[in-house]
Amino acid sequence: MDNSPPERSRIRNDSPGHGSGGPFEHISSTANETVKLLRSLERKKDRQETGLFLAEGARHAEEALANGWSPAYAFASQAALERPQTRDLLERMRKAGARVLTGTEKILATLSRKDNPQAVISAFRQKVTDIGALPVDGARRFVALYEVRDPGNLGTVIRTADAAGCDGVILVGTTCDPFSVETVRATMGSLFAMPLSVTSFEAFRAWRDKNNVRVIAASMRGQHAHDRASYPERTCILMGNEQAGLPVEVEAACDELVRIPMMGKADSLNLASAASVMIYEAWRAQGYRGANR
Amino acid sequence: MDNSPPERSRIRNDSPGHGSGGPFEHISSTANETVKLLRSLERKKDRQETGLFLAEGARHAEEALANGWSPAYAFASQAALERPQTRDLLERMRKAGARVLTGTEKILATLSRKDNPQAVISAFRQKVTDIGALPVDGARRFVALYEVRDPGNLGTVIRTADAAGCDGVILVGTTCDPFSVETVRATMGSLFAMPLSVTSFEAFRAWRDKNNVRVIAASMRGQHAHDRASYPERTCILMGNEQAGLPVEVEAACDELVRIPMMGKADSLNLASAASVMIYEAWRAQGYRGANR
Repeated sequence: MDNSPPERSRIRNDSPGHGSGGPFEHISSTANETVKLLRSLERKKDRQETGLFLAEGARHAEEALANGWSPAYAFASQAALERPQTRDLLERMRKAGARVLTGTEKILATLSRKDNPQAVISAFRQKVTDIGALPVDGARRFVALYEVRDPGNLGTVIRTADAAGCDGVILVGTTCDPFSVETVRATMGSLFAMPLSVTSFEAFRAWRDKNNVRVIAASMRGQHAHDRASYPERTCILMGNEQAGLPVEVEAACDELVRIPMMGKADSLNLASAASVMIYEAWRAQGYRGANR
Repeated sequence: MDNSPPERSRIRNDSPGHGSGGPFEHISSTANETVKLLRSLERKKDRQETGLFLAEGARHAEEALANGWSPAYAFASQAALERPQTRDLLERMRKAGARVLTGTEKILATLSRKDNPQAVISAFRQKVTDIGALPVDGARRFVALYEVRDPGNLGTVIRTADAAGCDGVILVGTTCDPFSVETVRATMGSLFAMPLSVTSFEAFRAWRDKNNVRVIAASMRGQHAHDRASYPERTCILMGNEQAGLPVEVEAACDELVRIPMMGKADSLNLASAASVMIYEAWRAQGYRGANR
């Protein structure tokens, strides 16, 4: 993964007052190979080829490190290096195996499409959990998304699942990429805390059967309201695709189909909103066990 | 509002088999003044100056017409005119007062930033409901958003409020523009069905006092879970800003502060997700009165 030219210069730490942080590699051109690599991670193809993805900002990098994710690269602007906490973060990123680079604000701007780019952009190694490795002892709640297409919806559901203490998010079938910039951004750091599995419907079904997980799907064809469902100790909420919902054969394999009540002509909720309503109903049925305070 | 050059040519309806519609004005240049006007509506300043906003697609135009919104312009590609239902829609738009134009796919593409532009782009006159005109007889549910900033969140909340049969969405303080392209898109047509008020906190408070509306706010400082609250006949859910939540003085004016349970390190939900959980809890407390089926 190291495509950088060998002749890259290193600079000394010219701000000794800012602590013991070592010299980081300094780069001066947007044509630098590592900058090109980081930029390429906006594309799914390049994320798949490298197994890496982008995390924007110091907060996401901190969350990722705290949860044991493996960093490959970090880039910070020189201005950001003036902050002791940023230097400290970059030191820890380096100790965890990252190649740490610094450069101009201009280079930083090319790494972010946002108007106010974050001071730190990093690349971590993608990590998913095999569905067979999800914890299934005792009371567990899962969220499964069938062919979810919108990156923002996916990220928002991961965030809600984390807030509500779910034990995993399971992507079933062909979905959008959970490591896209948009999805990672929408998770607000929850991507790093929430076990994520990617699997086929057949494997999901086998996992459900083996572990006695009750699958409750939200559907326009649900026979009763979602708060009339039985949410036992091991429950998985299943949500369908934004446009098409769930195929008939998938619904037929569910233990229970429920309907989120609606009124008037509105024909659907936003997927992430509907998932939030379902996730909180399942947790409510379990007395919000484990909630803070 | 008519900035179009007087020399614009008109074409005959060259597809008589498609019914009695037309002829519509045909334009051939992206430099056309009406095309420029429609494009300018992507900017808040121009929306404010003209009092217009963009609705993308035939479905949104249909929803707007069905709900009595006043159309100012409609633009359709010539290809779209081949569809009888599109011609019919454009005829009804014209009868409702719109200036209807047709042109090339290229012009259509300049009116939409999307890769697959909708076949019809229209401009409607903005409409908000004075807070004093919201219906307050009998059982009513409202959603108020204090200084909401994200257009997607605002649109999604309007969509949820519509699906759950709320009686109005109230924007309090300085918020993002409810008529932005992003917000209108995220409402999925619910903007046209849901009464929307824009007001100051003082006026919101006076309205609450006058009409005996119980204001229940979601807050990290809530003393009990949101499903322990009392949601009486006239209830208004109040949600704070994405970053800052609600100011102390606003919380002090609420009838009840509730907390959506959370677990672990997750420190917040997406605003639209949190609003959906609150909106559905309030409706649940009222037995989903009025729900379809």
